[in-house]
Amino acid sequence: MPKLTGADVSKHNSKDSCWVIVHGKAYDVTEFLPEHPGGQKIILKYAGKDATEEFEPIHPPDTLEKYLDKSKHLGEVDMSTVEQEEKEFDPEEADREQRIKQMPPLAACYNLMDFEAVARKVMKKTAWAYYSSGADDEITMRENHSAFHKIWFRPRILVDVENVDTSTTMLGTNVSIPFYVTATALGKLGHAEGEVVLTKAAHKHNVVQMIPTLASCSFDEIVDAKQGDQVQWLQLYVNKDRSITKRIVEHAEARGCKGLFITVDAPQLGRREKDMRSKFSDAGSSVQAKSGEDVDRSQGAARAISSFIDPALSWKDIPWFKSITKMPIILKGVQRVEDVLRAVEAGVQGVVLSNHGGRQLDFARSGIEVLAEVMPVLRERGLENKIEIFIDGGIRRATDIIKALCLGAKGVGIGRPFLFAMSSYGLPGVDKAMQLLKDEMEMNMRLIGASKIEDLNPTMVDTRGLGVHSAPVPVDTLNLNAYDPLQGPRFAEKPKL
Amino acid sequence: MPKLTGADVSKHNSKDSCWVIVHGKAYDVTEFLPEHPGGQKIILKYAGKDATEEFEPIHPPDTLEKYLDKSKHLGEVDMSTVEQEEKEFDPEEADREQRIKQMPPLAACYNLMDFEAVARKVMKKTAWAYYSSGADDEITMRENHSAFHKIWFRPRILVDVENVDTSTTMLGTNVSIPFYVTATALGKLGHAEGEVVLTKAAHKHNVVQMIPTLASCSFDEIVDAKQGDQVQWLQLYVNKDRSITKRIVEHAEARGCKGLFITVDAPQLGRREKDMRSKFSDAGSSVQAKSGEDVDRSQGAARAISSFIDPALSWKDIPWFKSITKMPIILKGVQRVEDVLRAVEAGVQGVVLSNHGGRQLDFARSGIEVLAEVMPVLRERGLENKIEIFIDGGIRRATDIIKALCLGAKGVGIGRPFLFAMSSYGLPGVDKAMQLLKDEMEMNMRLIGASKIEDLNPTMVDTRGLGVHSAPVPVDTLNLNAYDPLQGPRFAEKPKL
Amino acid sequence: MPKLTGADVSKHNSKDSCWVIVHGKAYDVTEFLPEHPGGQKIILKYAGKDATEEFEPIHPPDTLEKYLDKSKHLGEVDMSTVEQEEKEFDPEEADREQRIKQMPPLAACYNLMDFEAVARKVMKKTAWAYYSSGADDEITMRENHSAFHKIWFRPRILVDVENVDTSTTMLGTNVSIPFYVTATALGKLGHAEGEVVLTKAAHKHNVVQMIPTLASCSFDEIVDAKQGDQVQWLQLYVNKDRSITKRIVEHAEARGCKGLFITVDAPQLGRREKDMRSKFSDAGSSVQAKSGEDVDRSQGAARAISSFIDPALSWKDIPWFKSITKMPIILKGVQRVEDVLRAVEAGVQGVVLSNHGGRQLDFARSGIEVLAEVMPVLRERGLENKIEIFIDGGIRRATDIIKALCLGAKGVGIGRPFLFAMSSYGLPGVDKAMQLLKDEMEMNMRLIGASKIEDLNPTMVDTRGLGVHSAPVPVDTLNLNAYDPLQGPRFAEKPKL
Amino acid sequence: MPKLTGADVSKHNSKDSCWVIVHGKAYDVTEFLPEHPGGQKIILKYAGKDATEEFEPIHPPDTLEKYLDKSKHLGEVDMSTVEQEEKEFDPEEADREQRIKQMPPLAACYNLMDFEAVARKVMKKTAWAYYSSGADDEITMRENHSAFHKIWFRPRILVDVENVDTSTTMLGTNVSIPFYVTATALGKLGHAEGEVVLTKAAHKHNVVQMIPTLASCSFDEIVDAKQGDQVQWLQLYVNKDRSITKRIVEHAEARGCKGLFITVDAPQLGRREKDMRSKFSDAGSSVQAKSGEDVDRSQGAARAISSFIDPALSWKDIPWFKSITKMPIILKGVQRVEDVLRAVEAGVQGVVLSNHGGRQLDFARSGIEVLAEVMPVLRERGLENKIEIFIDGGIRRATDIIKALCLGAKGVGIGRPFLFAMSSYGLPGVDKAMQLLKDEMEMNMRLIGASKIEDLNPTMVDTRGLGVHSAPVPVDTLNLNAYDPLQGPRFAEKPKL
Repeated sequence: MPKLTGADVSKHNSKDSCWVIVHGKAYDVTEFLPEHPGGQKIILKYAGKDATEEFEPIHPPDTLEKYLDKSKHLGEVDMSTVEQEEKEFDPEEADREQRIKQMPPLAACYNLMDFEAVARKVMKKTAWAYYSSGADDEITMRENHSAFHKIWFRPRILVDVENVDTSTTMLGTNVSIPFYVTATALGKLGHAEGEVVLTKAAHKHNVVQMIPTLASCSFDEIVDAKQGDQVQWLQLYVNKDRSITKRIVEHAEARGCKGLFITVDAPQLGRREKDMRSKFSDAGSSVQAKSGEDVDRSQGAARAISSFIDPALSWKDIPWFKSITKMPIILKGVQRVEDVLRAVEAGVQGVVLSNHGGRQLDFARSGIEVLAEVMPVLRERGLENKIEIFIDGGIRRATDIIKALCLGAKGVGIGRPFLFAMSSYGLPGVDKAMQLLKDEMEMNMRLIGASKIEDLNPTMVDTRGLGVHSAPVPVDTLNLNAYDPLQGPRFAEKPKL
Repeated sequence: MPKLTGADVSKHNSKDSCWVIVHGKAYDVTEFLPEHPGGQKIILKYAGKDATEEFEPIHPPDTLEKYLDKSKHLGEVDMSTVEQEEKEFDPEEADREQRIKQMPPLAACYNLMDFEAVARKVMKKTAWAYYSSGADDEITMRENHSAFHKIWFRPRILVDVENVDTSTTMLGTNVSIPFYVTATALGKLGHAEGEVVLTKAAHKHNVVQMIPTLASCSFDEIVDAKQGDQVQWLQLYVNKDRSITKRIVEHAEARGCKGLFITVDAPQLGRREKDMRSKFSDAGSSVQAKSGEDVDRSQGAARAISSFIDPALSWKDIPWFKSITKMPIILKGVQRVEDVLRAVEAGVQGVVLSNHGGRQLDFARSGIEVLAEVMPVLRERGLENKIEIFIDGGIRRATDIIKALCLGAKGVGIGRPFLFAMSSYGLPGVDKAMQLLKDEMEMNMRLIGASKIEDLNPTMVDTRGLGVHSAPVPVDTLNLNAYDPLQGPRFAEKPKL
Repeated sequence: MPKLTGADVSKHNSKDSCWVIVHGKAYDVTEFLPEHPGGQKIILKYAGKDATEEFEPIHPPDTLEKYLDKSKHLGEVDMSTVEQEEKEFDPEEADREQRIKQMPPLAACYNLMDFEAVARKVMKKTAWAYYSSGADDEITMRENHSAFHKIWFRPRILVDVENVDTSTTMLGTNVSIPFYVTATALGKLGHAEGEVVLTKAAHKHNVVQMIPTLASCSFDEIVDAKQGDQVQWLQLYVNKDRSITKRIVEHAEARGCKGLFITVDAPQLGRREKDMRSKFSDAGSSVQAKSGEDVDRSQGAARAISSFIDPALSWKDIPWFKSITKMPIILKGVQRVEDVLRAVEAGVQGVVLSNHGGRQLDFARSGIEVLAEVMPVLRERGLENKIEIFIDGGIRRATDIIKALCLGAKGVGIGRPFLFAMSSYGLPGVDKAMQLLKDEMEMNMRLIGASKIEDLNPTMVDTRGLGVHSAPVPVDTLNLNAYDPLQGPRFAEKPKL
Repeated sequence: MPKLTGADVSKHNSKDSCWVIVHGKAYDVTEFLPEHPGGQKIILKYAGKDATEEFEPIHPPDTLEKYLDKSKHLGEVDMSTVEQEEKEFDPEEADREQRIKQMPPLAACYNLMDFEAVARKVMKKTAWAYYSSGADDEITMRENHSAFHKIWFRPRILVDVENVDTSTTMLGTNVSIPFYVTATALGKLGHAEGEVVLTKAAHKHNVVQMIPTLASCSFDEIVDAKQGDQVQWLQLYVNKDRSITKRIVEHAEARGCKGLFITVDAPQLGRREKDMRSKFSDAGSSVQAKSGEDVDRSQGAARAISSFIDPALSWKDIPWFKSITKMPIILKGVQRVEDVLRAVEAGVQGVVLSNHGGRQLDFARSGIEVLAEVMPVLRERGLENKIEIFIDGGIRRATDIIKALCLGAKGVGIGRPFLFAMSSYGLPGVDKAMQLLKDEMEMNMRLIGASKIEDLNPTMVDTRGLGVHSAPVPVDTLNLNAYDPLQGPRFAEKPKL
């Protein structure tokens, strides 16, 4: 078969017939458009063109193989006939490249927030927006960390803490410290190697990695990267087509995954306006848009009906999952005590109290707050050992981990901080981030008077402020403007020369 | 009758004899001055002059016909004899016109706040001030939205939400989503076509429009603009002269209005200082004012005795309203549970828990907070189905709507956001604003685990923080100034060239 | 007797012998130094010199007559022999004079905060500092107003409020509105005529004026300024020498005062650092001070032992006061319910719940908060009509007055706002300030559904937030710095020319 | 023995063999490196070099004698053979020296915060960072003072407070005011004379000084500086080698110390990032660090295993302490009521409720909050007189002291404020700081209605807000940006020339 030419492809440049080139091959994605989890707009931008550079960082290499029917694979393109687009000079991008040259050394990062502060300045705008954004007003996203600040310690003194052991188990796996690397999508946005960077760091620190359904690396690449008896779990978005889901689950089990985390808080992907706005200069500033005729209303719906995520997933599906795998099943995204009790009844091995990092429903409560609601009820009913409770969202300090464990969590998931460390400093960054947590953990265990994980208990925290979602009375502007604030002693004027 | 001349009119340029020209005709408004709802100052500014440009956007075309006795209609004026006033160059207005040229495209508006942010920069100063202002310190106005932030979700998971139906009924009318366009005055301040823009958008999205007494368009213009079986309600300020009120109500019923919303929170119009200040450069900066002699004290009183709004309206009037109309009667502006109970006794069909958008009594509580007080009492007494409860004030996100419905509201009214959308982008703006709410609504229903309106219930919200009106202890200035805040890693200096 | 010369006086320029000239006469104030309520430093600055300009605004004309023994009156000075000090150019003062030229017209003041905002810019630095300052960190001073923001309304609707009557009585006197002008010291700092300006405004608006012990005008000047049947009260600092106090009280009663308000919250005058700092450039920047040798430690003590205020005043003194006057006795500065009960037992006619405008003990609670504690206890014991309860501190809006009355206060005292109005705009300013309160009062009574003062009751307010003195958890700086806040739609760049 | 030469020493410039010169003598510190409480990095910076200037301010003169085995004392160095390092010009240091010239006079300091504000600008960067820093996010450090702001007064009136006596006793010692100078390390960082400055000030004001284990002056220097019957206490870090601890305790008792304060909140020294960052330019900016290879992971561990502080210290050690000394034993750093009860059982004489100035465990509660939890339990069990309760942390005002005493504390410790006063103004600074507290104390005792310490009781404070650790709902950015805040009256433009 003769190769296609750029001209052949370029004719199919609309919704009605949409071809794109990826890695030198052409594909007909016309029918796929409405199912694309990232929306059709972004594909249409490359309709009739070479989309490789945009495609690369956000899709596993086997994506087209797996998700696009063979009949839509149109064959090779003679790339010498494809017109190269010149890139415009982008002053924001130039600034970013300058900032990268001035980047602080890794040794200047003392905590997990520091990686985020660096990442914000050195990451590509769209990558930063994708990782850092949350749903709607990002209230829940910020509350996730803020909630930890409502919990204070009641430390014990005069406890022998010479030897502190931070190791514990999760779902039967021994880990060196009670956190795991939770699943986050599109790792290659932040680092060219993608999720395998996290695999390596997790190995080094003996913690579990949860492999995301929407990874940039393929599932097998990530599993291939594990070393020794390293343990991985699988995070699963349930496909409408259960045979696809079954294939994924069985493959994961075959490749040694030790836990199946079914995402239950995302029947539809959330709306992250910061992310949307970061892409706006590409897609939205046309003159027509101003007239209002071109308002894209399909996006909400498109996401919902995407076959990648089945909005019809329900409690009725749980027995089926139990029938297809022997891996422990954990529901990821449980948000109220009633559903934890139902999970116990359903016979799953664990739940993650999570709001998806604040990326789904704004004003969902933080995992740590839900935990404080859940554990007393479980204990009251004698169920606290029937199920493992994890939380994620907002963890930035070892003190956050300790608070979760005092309240009864088995472990906590950490996502964004490792992405930011990876995006800024690569593997050494993630390595350091984990080491910082370990150092903090050991120190703070000592300071709270606990030499091992089991010593952590609810009497060591004061949670009286936790449930209060207060917003102060709106500011009294006129009064505040009229007030003349106190000032300290005044330094003399610098003498003029 | 020979036409009047500009000279004839210009003699009547004082409180004692005040004539004005509108659309080429002269009127004697001397006796009307104290009754003018907008205060007499603004009329006196045009005493003896052509007031058309000022009059136009804030009065329905039939105003003078309806409210000014025929004997005060002085007949046509030979406009060629009327002196044209030159407009001064206004640098603020020039800036605004420049900003309009730089306006973001409609597609860049992702939520209802975005319209407000645009409107603030592109609306005429006085129009913005009229729409955006609230009573006194605007504490209640801001609390209205802020109160929603004290309510958090307890979402259900693993519910089949493939098909989400946001439709419901209000007062027997089917609507596609549980909000209605509430009544707001003076639509032409924001858009030349006025309230009919909202009529069209309401039709497109199958929601109810409430027609304001103080619309810029005439009532009939607004009714004429409805299409198909579109439903409208009437918002009513009760006139001291009940025969006028009776005429209005009967006319509305005859023209098909399906609900009578009697405003009960405005025996006197509130004092909105931002609005007053926006007009100040016109009326207040005279030298005399500085001496204190010219302090206008009549304004407060004038508003109170205005025959447009009867401050004597009381519970005793309700039976009379029931006698003159078959429309359902709803009290708009109820603010405590005792009065909801009384409304049930009085046999009205509904109440709107509202503080008039924060434009009347500052420190009135938000509708959503009152709702949380009202519903448990109604349920306790088995009255929750005897009356439909609506709220308005501060709704900006579909999550706000969902919170209200979880707590027991039948629907919510939205006002300002649509005005800002209309003022910035016209009908496409309002259309998009409504569509955004619909998209948010469908998504958030999915995320909270509700496939239809009836699924929303009080267990899905956490309202523990709602009743607390806290103002933090005043800031400790000296201590704060002395504190040296933590800093993240430092980027290197940019090398000098 | 020959006149003294400047040279004679100038020899007595130290602590050991300190003479000053006032209005052309010399006085020996050596022994008086430690008793001076304003501290001795300020007198020593004029030791041996003409102090008239400094003396004038802060002392009643009869001060030296009344408080300095005749033997210390040294007689007339030949002023032609007294050296005139040249004033240095003061750039701050020049700026202030420029600002006065640009002052907003009175008509631009819409509320009581507006006067404060103007006063801050046009008052002399030291005068502003004296009026505006509070104790220590000014926490209580600011809390006084802030506390009102924790109280929200539960308005009644459908009440006939056509006629609103804001009049009431206080200690038997009819007043047009339930506030009085409370006592504040040193009126001439703000306005050349001093307290009589307030007398005139009080008359115009039919409210009571409380005459301060430390007025700039003499007591008789203030009484002479009253008109018709205008009512005045006396605020009293109790002198160590009870015969002086007795003379003052009897004189006040003789001149028609209708209430004796004994200050009980000031056994020692508070420390107001803003005020101290405003005077610092005068007195503190000497080289010696830097060495630490010249630290003035006497000030605290001096104030305490000042014979003007007796720190030994106690409950045992109350019967004596009852024996020397028939005026009603009111304790001003009561701060807890136990002391209100004791006041009832002691048989006084009233108390003012007050913390002295936040000028005495920092972290004293606001009067309005104490009121909410006091009234339920009084009602429980059936004592609510045995005593009249007033409050002062932080009142800026009629809504504040209404809140106090709903909670059970008989009336409220207002101080600083009238001083700021007076200092900025003189009598017309105070007149307008009072009128603004009246307009607000009438409007807000209507809006809360009360046609007369007696209609105001505790069910009309929601005080759940009142008792909570919360300070949020300290800000999470690193996290906040790393967070990238959401932004609205972006306007296009302004095209370059 | 011939003197060593610079060349001899300079060969030992690595971890493997590390010699340093101090005061003209060489020492082999290779084996000591991992035990250095300040970390080994800082020593390695001077490996093979003269470290005197760095060593001097942070070690007592007898340090090397006491802690370094004689075999490591290498003898004198011929300093003429040691290369002098040239100092680079440091623009930050130059700015600081300029600021010192412009320093406010001492008389301009009106309160304890003022010293901190001055110190922040005139102290050496590293010294400031060491004194001012706290653990992790410095949340606890700031909460320490902030917690006092949640406590408000309920003052008594009409109490005879002519004579106010602020004296009291602590552990049997009479003091003029209920505070003591608590132990803080490294006094010479702030002032060349170190802790003896505090000794002198404490004597002058008749308060107790607690001598720190980690003082810059030697213990004996500090004891030698005491005058008359001045009382000192000893703060003790318990060494792994109990014989060293025993020696220290017995020596202190022999030299007259009257209390043994055993630190129990520091099994490991906290991580103070501000402090670490201040030293960063020295140690961290190497190219290798950027590669991530050089991450120093030993620091956390190093601190923990430091033989200076025994992390194995436990309740079992208490009887031993009782056996080696007759001094009262006080546990410093108790943080919950359970441990206070255990301390009573253990028979110690006192506890200090403290979190180590916020330098150890972040989110530990403030001493004042723990006090409010402790005292009611002690009183309930009749134990309130069995033990003396002290607190420290965040005390800046006499009102803070009064709050602690009302709640039941015997006295309070103050640390940083005196360091800042000393660092800025030397002994006169500390003297003034203490005097300010005394003046405030006397005044505020009067204003709260207490003439002696015993008059202070729990009814005088309102602590309802104390236990609430609230963090407001995250800010609603978009809404806030769209809001147009109210403005006061506008001043006219300044006329152009």
